[in-house]
Parts: sequence; C-alpha cells; structure tokens
Amino acid sequence: MNPMQILVIGGVAAGASFAARARRLDETAKITLIERGNDVSFANCGLPYHIGGEIPVRDVLAVQTPASLKAMLNVDARTRCEAIRIDRDNKRVLVRNLSEQTEEWISYDKLMLAPGARPRIPAIAGVNNPRIHTLRNLSDMDRIIADTAPGMNAVVIGAGFIGLETAEQLHRKGLKVKIVQKGPHVLPQVDAKMAIPLENALAGHGIELFLNDEVTQFEDSGKILSCRLASGKTLKAEIVILSIGIEPDTGLARDADLKLGKRGHIVVNEFMQTSDPDIYAAGDAVETTDRFFGGPVSVALGGPANRQGRVAADHLFLREKARPYPGSLGTAIVRVFDVAAGSTGWTENRLKAAGRQYGITTVNDFHHASYFPGTEMLTLTILWDPDTGILLGAEAVGTQGVDKRLDVLATAITAKMTVEDICHLELAYAPPFGSAKDVVNIAGFAACNQRDGLVRTVSRLPANAGVQIIDVRGKPVADASPVPGAVNIPMTVLRDNLDRIDRTRPVVTVCALGKNSYFASRVLKQNGFDVSSLAGGLSTLIK
Amino acid sequence: MNPMQILVIGGVAAGASFAARARRLDETAKITLIERGNDVSFANCGLPYHIGGEIPVRDVLAVQTPASLKAMLNVDARTRCEAIRIDRDNKRVLVRNLSEQTEEWISYDKLMLAPGARPRIPAIAGVNNPRIHTLRNLSDMDRIIADTAPGMNAVVIGAGFIGLETAEQLHRKGLKVKIVQKGPHVLPQVDAKMAIPLENALAGHGIELFLNDEVTQFEDSGKILSCRLASGKTLKAEIVILSIGIEPDTGLARDADLKLGKRGHIVVNEFMQTSDPDIYAAGDAVETTDRFFGGPVSVALGGPANRQGRVAADHLFLREKARPYPGSLGTAIVRVFDVAAGSTGWTENRLKAAGRQYGITTVNDFHHASYFPGTEMLTLTILWDPDTGILLGAEAVGTQGVDKRLDVLATAITAKMTVEDICHLELAYAPPFGSAKDVVNIAGFAACNQRDGLVRTVSRLPANAGVQIIDVRGKPVADASPVPGAVNIPMTVLRDNLDRIDRTRPVVTVCALGKNSYFASRVLKQNGFDVSSLAGGLSTLIK
Repeated sequence: MNPMQILVIGGVAAGASFAARARRLDETAKITLIERGNDVSFANCGLPYHIGGEIPVRDVLAVQTPASLKAMLNVDARTRCEAIRIDRDNKRVLVRNLSEQTEEWISYDKLMLAPGARPRIPAIAGVNNPRIHTLRNLSDMDRIIADTAPGMNAVVIGAGFIGLETAEQLHRKGLKVKIVQKGPHVLPQVDAKMAIPLENALAGHGIELFLNDEVTQFEDSGKILSCRLASGKTLKAEIVILSIGIEPDTGLARDADLKLGKRGHIVVNEFMQTSDPDIYAAGDAVETTDRFFGGPVSVALGGPANRQGRVAADHLFLREKARPYPGSLGTAIVRVFDVAAGSTGWTENRLKAAGRQYGITTVNDFHHASYFPGTEMLTLTILWDPDTGILLGAEAVGTQGVDKRLDVLATAITAKMTVEDICHLELAYAPPFGSAKDVVNIAGFAACNQRDGLVRTVSRLPANAGVQIIDVRGKPVADASPVPGAVNIPMTVLRDNLDRIDRTRPVVTVCALGKNSYFASRVLKQNGFDVSSLAGGLSTLIK
Repeated sequence: MNPMQILVIGGVAAGASFAARARRLDETAKITLIERGNDVSFANCGLPYHIGGEIPVRDVLAVQTPASLKAMLNVDARTRCEAIRIDRDNKRVLVRNLSEQTEEWISYDKLMLAPGARPRIPAIAGVNNPRIHTLRNLSDMDRIIADTAPGMNAVVIGAGFIGLETAEQLHRKGLKVKIVQKGPHVLPQVDAKMAIPLENALAGHGIELFLNDEVTQFEDSGKILSCRLASGKTLKAEIVILSIGIEPDTGLARDADLKLGKRGHIVVNEFMQTSDPDIYAAGDAVETTDRFFGGPVSVALGGPANRQGRVAADHLFLREKARPYPGSLGTAIVRVFDVAAGSTGWTENRLKAAGRQYGITTVNDFHHASYFPGTEMLTLTILWDPDTGILLGAEAVGTQGVDKRLDVLATAITAKMTVEDICHLELAYAPPFGSAKDVVNIAGFAACNQRDGLVRTVSRLPANAGVQIIDVRGKPVADASPVPGAVNIPMTVLRDNLDRIDRTRPVVTVCALGKNSYFASRVLKQNGFDVSSLAGGLSTLIK
C-alpha cells in the first residue's frame, strides 16, 4: 500500500497543529505543508509585542521553521507556496511557488484547508497607501517596525484586541498614538462598563480616543497622512494601523464549490470535515458551532484553531476513538498597560442583540486577601438564565487575577453550572493567591440573592427625581465625592436613622463597591422600604 | 412574637459568617456571638505573614471588632467569653467571662457551634515549655513576634501549610530556621515529586530540612531548648513552632451528647444541623461529606468554614429556598518563597491509601506563552478514573499560575468533567496570560493519549538494566547532564538512527519535560518497539 498523501494548506496554528498530530498518529504518511507567507507556525499573537520591544528578540516568534518541521515531524513544509486551485475530481492542488514563479500539481488523499483570515480593508478613499498597515504575520510586523520611530504620530483604527495591543506597543516604542473606534467604547467584545478601566488606562498613558467616529478619507501629502473623520476632525499620522477585523480567506474553498456559511466561512462538521469528506478545514476560516446555544459561530482565536487541527487529525487516524470538536465558547482577554479585560461565553451585548432573557450580576472584590500586600480590586459580571440560573457568560476587568476568574468561569460555563453551583466552588486559597470567599463565589452569592428575591439591583443611578438615593458610604468619602441628589447615611448608623428616609418613595442604596449598599438594602427591605441596590457600586460608573 | 434568640459560639470564620448572613436575612433576631479568644473575625490565614513583616501592619488582620459587628450587623459580640456547658433541655448555654471571671446563662432558640480546632500537642517530654509555640490566633502571633529576633535559631516541627508559611516568615525575619518533618517530604498533602520544588526553595534559602524524623524530647537548659530527634540528632533553638496538625475543639459538643464522628468532629447534615436540630455547627470542628466519593471528611480551611456558616443561616431563614452544603473538595495551596504548590480533590497518596484505581498524568509546560517575557515552567499532575476518564484530583507546583490551574481543575472536578472535557476547555489566551494550548489542555491531551493507547508512561527511570533508556534531548544538554545508562539519540535524528536501538528489549524514552520523549515514543511504537515514555520528563525527578 502506498503511504497516505496528506496536503496541508496554511502553516500557522490550525495547519501546523494538524500536521504535527497527523505525524504522531502516522509515521508513514507523506505530509506536505504549504504556506503562502514567509513563515510557518509563528507566534501570531506575539506580533504586537515585538513592535514595542516587550518581546525583544524576533527569533522567539518563529516557533518552527521548515527545517525544524522536517527534523521533528518529517513534514515537507514549503513557504512562499500558494495554493491557487483545488481539483477535487483528481484530488490534487495547483501550487504556485511565489519565489520561483513556478507551478505544480500536488496530489492528496486527504487535504487540510487552514488558510486563515485576512484583515478587513474598508472601502475608503486613499486606503491603499504604504503608510497604512495591517498586522497578521511576521512580514507585516517587520514593515511596521521599519516604518516607525519614537516621536511619530500613529493612528490605530479599530479598538479590538489587536488594535489595543498594537496601540499599547506603539506607545511603548515612543509614538504618539490615537485610536479611532466606530462604537461607543473600546473592546466592543465586552460591555460598556467593563471597558471603562481600559479607556482610563489608555488615557492615563496619553493615548487619545476618538469614539463613535470613523475615518472617511485618507489624504497623503507626501510628508504625512491625514485621516478625515466622520466627526469632521482630522488626525495626521506618519503611520496608520488598520485593525477593524478580519474576514475568512476562503476564495480557494469557494472556487472548489465547498459549502460556505453566510459570512463566507467554510462549513465543517464536528470532525472538521468540509462538504467534501476528503477535505478538512480548521482555524480562522471555518464556522463551527456555538458551544452554548448551538448555531454557527466563527471564533478566530489561536486556542480553537490549534484544537480544531488536532480534532481533524484524530478523525483521520483514530477513527472511532476520535472525539468531536465541542464548539467554541469565545473566551478572550486583552492586556492594556496594567489593566486586563476579557469575557467568556455570551456577553450582555450579545444576549441583548439576540433578544434573549438574562439575569446580570456585577460585583467588585479583591483579587486576593484584602489584607495581603499588593491586593487589587477587580470587577466581575456574570450573566445567567433567569429560569434555571445556568451561567451564560462572564466578563471581568482589573489589574490582577482577571485571567484566573475568566478561566474558572469558562470551565463553569462549559459544565453548564448554575449561579448556585459557583457559590460553592472550592478554589485555592492562601493569602497570596485568593480569598476565603473568592470573587467568583461572591458573584454566585449575589446572583442567588437576586434569584431568591433578597435584593433588587439597578445598574445605574436613577434618573427619576422621585427616587431617593441613599449613599451609605462613610461621611468623609461621601463628602469628598458626593453623589448628586443623594442623602448620606453611613451603613454603620443606618438602623438608627430610618426616619430620615421617606417610606412613600422608592429608594436606591449606593456605596463604593456594591457590598454595603446590598447590606443597607437588606435593612431597608426588612423595614418595609421599596429598595434597590446599585450593583457593583459607584466604582463601575466612574470613567 | 418575641424575636428569635440566636447564640453563636466561636467568632472567627464560620461563626462570624453565620452571624452576618443571619442578620442579613433577619433584622429582628437577637444575635449574640461569644468568642473565647481576644478577637473576633480575624484573618487567621494571615498570621504567619505578620511574623515576618510581609504584612507590615497588625491592624489589617483584625478584620472585624465587636464594635464593628455591632455597628454593621447589630450583633452583640463578646470576646474572652467561653461557653462551658450547653443545657439542651432548657436551650441555654453557660458562659464564663474570662476577664471578669463571672458566669451567666444565655438562652437560645437556635445555637451555632463554631468552636474551631486547636493545635495538636504531641505527648513528648518537655513539650510544655514557654519556648514552644503554636499559631492559631492573634495572641499566639503576638507572642511569637515578641519572642523572636534576627539571628535566633528556630525549629519548626511539621511541614504542612502553617509550618511552611511560618518557617518562611521566620526566615524573612532573619532567624535561622530548621524544619523537622515526620514524613519523607514536606507538604504531605501532595505527592513526593510535587514537593521537590518546595524543598529546593527551602534549601535555597538555607532552611535545613530533617525529613523522616521527629522530636522525641525537649530539654531546656535555661538559655536554649534542645530538640532531640529520633535520628539521634539534636537541634538547639531559642524558639520552636509546633505545627503538626489540629484537632477539633469539640469537648462542649461531646458533653452535650451531640453526635460526633470517629475522629471527634461534630456530625452535621447537609444543612449543617447537628444531631440536635436547634443546634447548627460549622467550620474546623465539623465533619462534612467528601464532595467526590461521599463519606465523612473534615476540611479545616477558611473557604469551607465561611460557606458552611452561610448555609446554616440560609437553612434557618430561607427554609425551602436554602441549598445544601455540597461537601468539601479539599483544595489547598501554599507559597514557599517564590514557589507555589497545591492540590484539589484526591491526591495520589490518598487514592493509593484508599485502594482506588486511578490513572495519572504529569506534564510540564509554561505558565504563559513561552515566547513572552517572564514565562515560567509549572508541573501539573492530574488523576483520573481509568474506566470513565472522570477527573479525581490534581496537583500543581511552580512559580507562576499554579493557583489558576488548581482553580480551573477544582471547577472541572466539581463538574465531574473527564480528561476528554479538559482538552477542549477554552481558556483565556493572550501572550501575557496563557497559551493557545494551556497546560490544562495539554494534561488532557496527554491523558487521552494514555487512554487511547497511544503512549505508555512510566513515572520513574527503570531500575532494570534490561530496559534501554533512550535520551532524546539535544546532545549538548545530554552531555552536560547525562542520564546514567542512557543512550543519547536526539529527537531530531531519531528516525535515522532506529538501528541503534535493540528491538528485542523494552525501551524507555526520556527528555527534559516529557514532551519530546512522548514524540519519540510515538516514532518507536509505530516502528514496532516496546516503548514507554518518562512522564513529566527528568525535571520532575530533580531535587
């Protein structure tokens, strides 16, 4: 029997993972990997950090090379080779060698399509300009590094993950950075209030934000590029980074009549097979299933891409032992200077847009024991099904421990845990690492209190003048930063001052973090008041 | 109707949590809390850290005071008041005021017993000596601080959590510290190989370890205390810390004929009721249920204590809405200098002792992207049911990210996830926070490979000379630290050197971390060799 011929198109996360796993499962297969770019299996998530020098050595980003893939995996990896046509009838792919401008047909028994995605380029006048960059691979990175120097002006268009990381690193290199964001806040993946600490961090480093705005035209004077904004403003820059999103690079799949989804992604089954069972696909180019609600979803992240490549190889070689790809949750995190923010599962924005009912709970607490040096506050929001209490999603922001809480909640969401279940998660506690009641437990407690009718929360200060705002913070704090329209009755003296509150009007209790206002609301509720507590306290409203 | 009279005995974690939750659920109850010691609701987990000055200010450890409990919770908290008898027939408790040496009966409708535990004192000659200390409360801590000074010799007896933390902090204060541990390694809660990095950290700071040894006699010369060891050695010290464990402080419950467990803990139901339904109990003094296998278990940790107090209050006031205490998992962590180690669920030692079958997987990987600055290696062991693949426990050790992995796995274990499930946990990834394939995923992959028969692992180097050891590390590394009896064939040239390996004898492949040895074992297995891979690599064997 001839060895199986495997051809892999695309050599970064999904393609390289597939090739590596395939080799481990079959020593005899002939595995060929072609990559259009200059590099295989590079650390694309690390690209922004070499621009600013936080990753000082470029070589560490080239995780594998064709030579190392040959030595370790006996894979024939060829860079600067582009697949230009799939001939499914004859099971072969026409490949162009971009260096030598030659073409050849490569036959396959099984094909893996891992073409990835390309940056979205808006149809704006002047957008094709050498000063305007995108960042997807090492070559892009090298060009950005070559074209930037301290003191230059940079405009970053789009404040998603890549945009924020690149803005931070350009600032680190000494550029004057501005960010233009179409929506009302940075990191559209999370909800507005979770983005506030990120925006504060950007502002604190002198990075100017242009929210609810967009570029309508680029004009190059030769010496500088002018970005005309919809608001009428003009931003001048030596360099512009376009990071408004990506689109799947699926022209090859489309030309081969493989089934595509509504937004152009390759449709695959749970074993990553396309509509042609001899062709697998994985990574940013595919559409998989939402892990929670089902339905098509595309999550362009390294983790899913790597695991999808593995699933495909398992299906090919392990057969009945292979386990399906369970779908994507959409867990993501970004660091902006000292602040981290991220989400897992469904966000409030997404639940709203889908018209789904949800309960929401926001708490603030310390990332480890409050009395241990270096303790930092973090904000955690959990979203849950109002009928069952099952967790739907979580968002977190803070300077420490954000990744840990997202990971715990990603695990809990995957397990379909309820808010009751997370009350009793027994997490690792010693003062340097956590609290006897972790903020995850606290979020569970708070959500249970809502579900049990012990507390009613509001997410913003009442606009209605008929509502009494009772500020239960201590007097010095309340005097220093008074809440407009509020009456200050510190929690410690609340029980003795109930006669200062009008029983005929609704009450909202407020405090710094949402804990004492909850305590106060319990006192007032049991004394017959119509009371709500400001969830997460005043801290979550401060910009 | 008269308000409900609630009496709480013990004012630290469980008792204070119960009182606070009870107040939030009922404004009218008369809540009295008595505490034998000088302080209520103090941060007992923080005590070691003030000894060494890492927590510089003592006040932060006194989280609440009787005055703050009165102001915030309208709880009548009385320190230095000891319960000396429970009169269940008349529902009252005889309380002695230790300051004034007076006694009074306090009536209750509902009683909470949260007496905690006391340090175990071994029956050793000379053990009653003012130089010999235990550490359970602020007064103990104050005495240790008063009796220690830089340059003194300290002997810590017992290398569990408190012993290790106290040893570290005495060293931080400038004392010369020795540790005596009865067992073969420090932190008996984890398995031997996970303790090695802790022992290295202690040794690296000049803390001497006396393992497999114990004190048989203390002799006080007046100027110094001599600790005679079973080994024949004598350690001289100005101060000795006894930290060989605790025992539940349940004399009061025993005298009141409440049901106790085999080891003297108070038996409670899932709502923390004792055998007398008007008496609840919670915290270190009670026996609850093992969350995994059922059966009685006592977990003396702050997290469970706090949540048990809450469960009891919920049962008292929320009635049918109250949710049971789900049992304890036993998640714990300790920091020793820059190393953290901990476990969740069942450890290998405990599974062995219980005669349970288990699979074991050990992996090493980086705590965040390997190419991102500051990356550190951590070692993760997972234990799983060989029939179902369901996780039974996990252990982790390293300098960064240990708490996060334990928390993720505590959540996964609680959810009864399998090793297959954790392959596809979608954890938060950006280079500063994790890896596209987190070490938790990697552990899942490795365990699946074992279950699928792709790899057979061994946990130590073969003693049998008939087994060939193939070291697949690069030649420079293998030359610098050769493995006795091994043949070095680097992974990169393995496929071309199969003829150097004897096909008639079994093979064990080894490398630094256990990854390349797995790769190599796949190559060899597919080429017909009888091969095993050293799990976790040579790093886990290095002391």
